[in-house]
Amino acid sequence: MTARPDPLNDDDRFMNIALEEARIAAYAGEVPIGAVAVIGSEVIARGHNLRETLNDPTAHAEMIVIREASVKLEQWRLTDVTLYVTIEPCAMCAGAIVLARVPRVVFGARDPKAGGGGSVFQILQEPALNHRVELASGIKEDICSNILKDFFGNRRDRDKVEIN
Amino acid sequence: MTARPDPLNDDDRFMNIALEEARIAAYAGEVPIGAVAVIGSEVIARGHNLRETLNDPTAHAEMIVIREASVKLEQWRLTDVTLYVTIEPCAMCAGAIVLARVPRVVFGARDPKAGGGGSVFQILQEPALNHRVELASGIKEDICSNILKDFFGNRRDRDKVEIN
Repeated sequence: MTARPDPLNDDDRFMNIALEEARIAAYAGEVPIGAVAVIGSEVIARGHNLRETLNDPTAHAEMIVIREASVKLEQWRLTDVTLYVTIEPCAMCAGAIVLARVPRVVFGARDPKAGGGGSVFQILQEPALNHRVELASGIKEDICSNILKDFFGNRRDRDKVEIN
Repeated sequence: MTARPDPLNDDDRFMNIALEEARIAAYAGEVPIGAVAVIGSEVIARGHNLRETLNDPTAHAEMIVIREASVKLEQWRLTDVTLYVTIEPCAMCAGAIVLARVPRVVFGARDPKAGGGGSVFQILQEPALNHRVELASGIKEDICSNILKDFFGNRRDRDKVEIN
């Protein structure tokens, strides 16, 4: 149960589950980003962005998954969890990942406008903080990115929707 | 209701309420940080750190107050809210403040180890993001800081407690 997912065999598989969550978000009119928390080969939490549905600015996919995993594990330290997310975490989510002591994050596409995993801030690997996160990126990058592009492309004429 | 608090007359008053929240946290064995959300001269949400009580790594005072204010206002954009917090927000909380479009943050003492309002990161005023926050700091700084120092001083021999 405490073994890590195997990057070679498992990263694609778990990113596909995060992508399923992103599609559920899109269907509900939410910015399509999904996330999954994994211990060993078991999904312990999955979720997607729910900002509009919950009227909650903090309801990003990663936050929902971190909170659900903490409830399930009955502890705030998620030291055995690998977190998969379709898009690079923003500053808030990157901060939460560090606070939760998540050891490894796998994300799909970069967010050059607001990413907190190296694009705008490097919160996940800041030497000054008391925890640093192992990072992998580019897993199913095009699919993760295209779901967002399609969503904003479709909506451009109707609403102005902001990713963050 | 949409008027801002008056910095000269109101900042001390609302920081005192945030300090009350910090004391409630200390009493419960939580890292003593408190926050208040204000519109005009009305407190619309108040809260303190609840990480240990809720087993939730995201349960910082600012997050609790932002979420409570969003529920109360039935919207995720907190464009009329001034947020008071006893200690400089961390990366997660600073990110959430930007996501919620909070226009002004007033904090007491800096957090040189993890602050996201200029100390380790400057998330609240990053030109690349789509929102920048007006900042005031140093309000009741010594009291805000001493509550934390006393808490960690008292606990040093018993537990190892981390602020973040």
